[in-house]
Amino acid sequence: MGLDALFSPRAVAVIGASNRELTIGYRIIENLMDFGYVGPIHPVNPKGGEIRGLKACRSILEVPGEVDVAHIVIKNTFVPACVEDCAKKGVKAVIINTAGFQEIGAEGAALEAELVAIARRTGIRVFGPNCQGVINTDPAVRAYLNFTFTRPTPGHISIVAQSGGVGEVIHQRITELGVGVRQYASNGNACDVSIPEILRHWGRDETTRVVIVHIESLADPRDFLEAATEVCRTKPVLAMIVGRTAEGARAVSSHTGGLMRQHTAIERVFTKAGIVAFRNIEEMCQAAIGFASEPVPAGNRVGMIANTGGPAIIATDELIENGMVMPPLSAATATALRAKLYPEASIHNPVDVLATAGPEHFAAALDALLADPGIDAIFLNFVTPFFVDTLGIAREIAAARARATKPIVATVMTEKKGWAETLEVIRASGVPCYDMPETGARVLAAMGRHAAFRRRPAEAPATFPDVDRTAARVLVEAAVGAGRPSLSGKEGFRLLAAYGIPAARCAGAGSVEECVAAADAIGYPVVLKVDVEAVLHKSDRGGVVLGIADRDQLARAAEAMLARFAAAHPRLLVQEQLAGGLEVIVGASAVEGLGHVVMFGLGGIHVEVLKDVSFEVTPVTAPEADAMIRALRSSPILAGVRGQPGVDRGALAEILQRASRLLEDHPEIRELDINPLLATPDGARAADVRVLFSPEPGGD
Amino acid sequence: MGLDALFSPRAVAVIGASNRELTIGYRIIENLMDFGYVGPIHPVNPKGGEIRGLKACRSILEVPGEVDVAHIVIKNTFVPACVEDCAKKGVKAVIINTAGFQEIGAEGAALEAELVAIARRTGIRVFGPNCQGVINTDPAVRAYLNFTFTRPTPGHISIVAQSGGVGEVIHQRITELGVGVRQYASNGNACDVSIPEILRHWGRDETTRVVIVHIESLADPRDFLEAATEVCRTKPVLAMIVGRTAEGARAVSSHTGGLMRQHTAIERVFTKAGIVAFRNIEEMCQAAIGFASEPVPAGNRVGMIANTGGPAIIATDELIENGMVMPPLSAATATALRAKLYPEASIHNPVDVLATAGPEHFAAALDALLADPGIDAIFLNFVTPFFVDTLGIAREIAAARARATKPIVATVMTEKKGWAETLEVIRASGVPCYDMPETGARVLAAMGRHAAFRRRPAEAPATFPDVDRTAARVLVEAAVGAGRPSLSGKEGFRLLAAYGIPAARCAGAGSVEECVAAADAIGYPVVLKVDVEAVLHKSDRGGVVLGIADRDQLARAAEAMLARFAAAHPRLLVQEQLAGGLEVIVGASAVEGLGHVVMFGLGGIHVEVLKDVSFEVTPVTAPEADAMIRALRSSPILAGVRGQPGVDRGALAEILQRASRLLEDHPEIRELDINPLLATPDGARAADVRVLFSPEPGGD
Repeated sequence: MGLDALFSPRAVAVIGASNRELTIGYRIIENLMDFGYVGPIHPVNPKGGEIRGLKACRSILEVPGEVDVAHIVIKNTFVPACVEDCAKKGVKAVIINTAGFQEIGAEGAALEAELVAIARRTGIRVFGPNCQGVINTDPAVRAYLNFTFTRPTPGHISIVAQSGGVGEVIHQRITELGVGVRQYASNGNACDVSIPEILRHWGRDETTRVVIVHIESLADPRDFLEAATEVCRTKPVLAMIVGRTAEGARAVSSHTGGLMRQHTAIERVFTKAGIVAFRNIEEMCQAAIGFASEPVPAGNRVGMIANTGGPAIIATDELIENGMVMPPLSAATATALRAKLYPEASIHNPVDVLATAGPEHFAAALDALLADPGIDAIFLNFVTPFFVDTLGIAREIAAARARATKPIVATVMTEKKGWAETLEVIRASGVPCYDMPETGARVLAAMGRHAAFRRRPAEAPATFPDVDRTAARVLVEAAVGAGRPSLSGKEGFRLLAAYGIPAARCAGAGSVEECVAAADAIGYPVVLKVDVEAVLHKSDRGGVVLGIADRDQLARAAEAMLARFAAAHPRLLVQEQLAGGLEVIVGASAVEGLGHVVMFGLGGIHVEVLKDVSFEVTPVTAPEADAMIRALRSSPILAGVRGQPGVDRGALAEILQRASRLLEDHPEIRELDINPLLATPDGARAADVRVLFSPEPGGD
Repeated sequence: MGLDALFSPRAVAVIGASNRELTIGYRIIENLMDFGYVGPIHPVNPKGGEIRGLKACRSILEVPGEVDVAHIVIKNTFVPACVEDCAKKGVKAVIINTAGFQEIGAEGAALEAELVAIARRTGIRVFGPNCQGVINTDPAVRAYLNFTFTRPTPGHISIVAQSGGVGEVIHQRITELGVGVRQYASNGNACDVSIPEILRHWGRDETTRVVIVHIESLADPRDFLEAATEVCRTKPVLAMIVGRTAEGARAVSSHTGGLMRQHTAIERVFTKAGIVAFRNIEEMCQAAIGFASEPVPAGNRVGMIANTGGPAIIATDELIENGMVMPPLSAATATALRAKLYPEASIHNPVDVLATAGPEHFAAALDALLADPGIDAIFLNFVTPFFVDTLGIAREIAAARARATKPIVATVMTEKKGWAETLEVIRASGVPCYDMPETGARVLAAMGRHAAFRRRPAEAPATFPDVDRTAARVLVEAAVGAGRPSLSGKEGFRLLAAYGIPAARCAGAGSVEECVAAADAIGYPVVLKVDVEAVLHKSDRGGVVLGIADRDQLARAAEAMLARFAAAHPRLLVQEQLAGGLEVIVGASAVEGLGHVVMFGLGGIHVEVLKDVSFEVTPVTAPEADAMIRALRSSPILAGVRGQPGVDRGALAEILQRASRLLEDHPEIRELDINPLLATPDGARAADVRVLFSPEPGGD
């Protein structure tokens, strides 16, 4: 059932309907009628009367027959009682356009909580509040449940935007570009019907070929990740998250009352789900148009056809910089082209058919590239010279589209009035036409990104049968149960051991004698550390002594340390001094509602100065762990440079996955910091680990 | 005189005029007539007759009266003789539309060389060949000397594009956006009239307020740098260079026959000249529209006004990511706003006046931000709700524009037919209106970049009175005169000394005894190097011994080295072993026609793996040297991190400037490599230097 009643209601009521033209209560009725809604429309107004020729009922309870959707456009404090009445009436979903809920502070939040409670109790679905509504262009429905002005034609793009303003800009732009829309939704405060739920609805809707998503904040990012992952397997999801800068995030927060602390985590959710991410509305709209009409390319190899050089160069730069490749033409393709193009034509990639080329030359070039198995997609740069048969060329492009199984994207550079018919023939064929070479190139590159995701096997996270989850739970639950903010160093090492993450050998000790006994078992040289929760920055406070060579040095160091930290009744940790290796860091932070974001980077200046780190959301799969390692600018250092041997990247990838498993099993962990992890050609071992259950003061 | 006759001819001939409509020889006459050219038009065709009602002369020599410009549209091999005739006739400039010159290879290049020779000899100016032509919208001229289709209205934007295809796309786009153009030029092979010359022409043209430049390659990049620097001081120059990727550069080369090897140097030329650089035609066109109407902002502090939150957040992200700042509102501004806006309005930056805001609220917000001395520019996000007086709001925006001395950039999100009058009032006021928040934000950010350049004092390169140029010339001329590919190490150090660039003390030696004597003078420890030109990678071949502690070690090392390189009759170099310091690199490469590009970076992985280097074109001024140092991601390491002291960045900046002076004085130097330069808290000294006069095999 899902959201069918919301998007395809059999009857609609508008509670707060009005005869005053500049009100939302009038506008929604006008929009429903003008757009040709197929079902009955019931204005509801306590004064009764008539609105646009429709008899108004005094209450939703007086409306004759069943009502699937009720718009609510009355004062905020009256809304909860009204929703109760709707539930009583058997209304399936309410769209609450009224503002004055969570976004205005505590009082509004309490009203919104009432709405959620009613929804949970009665089963009625609440869309909004503080929202625009939905639109469904399906000719069998024609539901314009919205107060905006864009009048879409039926098509294959569905749009959901948290911000009504941005949703309207997207909707307006796609419509202005002459492209159809399937369904539209802007759910404002999103107290009940959520973006993930809408995504899943469109995943099942066959007429929706591409989904556009605009997000300012997510109440349940994990649910979004799961819904998006599911939908991305069958159709492209194009998305944009705003509030990327501190200034932008502040603006989000004052705007919607939502929380945007973990914005960067959402960009990683996009990647993990297979979403095609954008940072620009215009680019996202243009890409949606391409995705709506063209097949997904098999790969990223582009063949370009041009009849003038300059724009082709621009498109080439843009394609290459956005991850596409332009392979040389195969011998067979070159031969075919030489036989049919002008002798002066450039038989390379891009193919320059020359400005004087006619329909037969374009047909030959399209044929040759469509037949070339080394080409996955065709990019056409077509300037309309006044001295050739541009209409004939357009017909050849349309014919190629009809027989092609590869995507064709065109840049058509022309004077639109003089060449209207030429343009119309290309557009009618379905080939997406762009004004600018960069625009078309970026659209094709977006298709390439989606294609790469579609080729990526859906790999499950590795299972590690050697993991001793029970031992680890005991450790974590004991610490959390006792209200401790972190594990001790010794416990941290035990946690790593339980997850098979290699580390320096170590032992706890309470006295000089125990230290010596531990070191005798471990073998010299050793490291001595104070192991007290309150001393987080151990080395700054003399709590770490490295390179202890023998019993005498150890005894002196242990004595001094016990004295220095006597007030804390310290335990000590004696650990194997690891001999060399490259310092890397595996870290993680919990993100509310999502899980953990795992971080990887090289130690020292690489993290602290150059900020060269990579991230992934849990669970981290094997290909994702590899990608985290490859994503670093400093990655060549791991492979070995300047005469230094490389390190065991396989071992690092496995540790990332084991750490991911650890974090998933223990959601209480707020922060994990394996630092340094010393990587060598034969493996990697942790030299220190911190496990926090509550954020550090001043952090988060 | 310059290019006045070309852009404002008193009479025009078209040689190769034709009655066949689909020819360029017909099209140019049609364009001249349709555009309303004010002077006489003379078709020239050997058959005589009439063309579009104009009597055709059989030869340019038969044309009555003076002719300033002649289009030439005849077969390539006939062109040189025709240009001779034009010169004889006293024609000031020819526009050669005909192709088949340098771009087709040796034969065409020879024809083009003939054209250049005629131009030099007779003083006639040659525009092209293989080009479109020029356009001048000046109502006193109306010269459409071009075969394209765009019909511009008079305005303030002038456009020069090497590629006719790209020029037409730019011209078409600006015209389609309803904005006027001043002059247009696309000069194809550019054998005589060059882009720098056209730039200078527009620098002097008061009606041109902004210049757009599209470049594929530059014959004389230094001339371009000088012309652009001059013009950028008085008006914004917006430019784009294509062929950024290897694939794109190859396409340039096959397209125009031009050379694009040093494309990256040209991006640095843009920065040095103060050009506002773009990588996208659409963005460049949109920015030109903003520059053409708005004043240059005093700084980068933006105040934003919005009546809906979502698009404001998007604009905020985009502004901040592009270098603008959005300061908090001053107390006075906040007070003024609180007094006049709705109580629920958001009195922050962005100011959210709310969707229900009317003309008086917009006026109040505009007033407050225009009066705030902490705000340099205003960004307006205006969605047109159906329930407010949008026309009244538009009139307030127009009134604000009339009194404002700060730039105002607007994003107007609307349904263009329903709100046509509202839009028209804003557009007519001159406020640039964009559809998308990102577009407007990027335009304002481009204005901010230009403003930063305008604030930058035009600093002359430092003069260093201690430089001994004469001694250096002797060294360089002796080596170059002898046909040597490089300086010896000893000579390299002498060259540095002549330019006051500190280095390790050193001395040459031919024998063990001379080595010992040199080391005694320098003081131990020393470094011993073989100093033979052929041994460039000295250390790989045992030609360098570091850390020699005493006479015995030195004698043994010198003996072994003399033996190892005996075949090369080696000289040796004994040099002071520098004690520590951070390894940095100062390098330089010559760029044909430009001078040198100086490089700076940290040594080791920073250069080799992380490619973290900065560049500047000679001459390097003091602020440019500082910027080179600050531009590195690793720059904090120079300032001091992780308990390490910083290094003397002032000394590094001075060395960069002295190296720049050295390179300018000795254009024979192809490559300079001071590597490592050891930087300490007290200065920096070179430990090695290479000076090459010819490129390394396989390089360049």
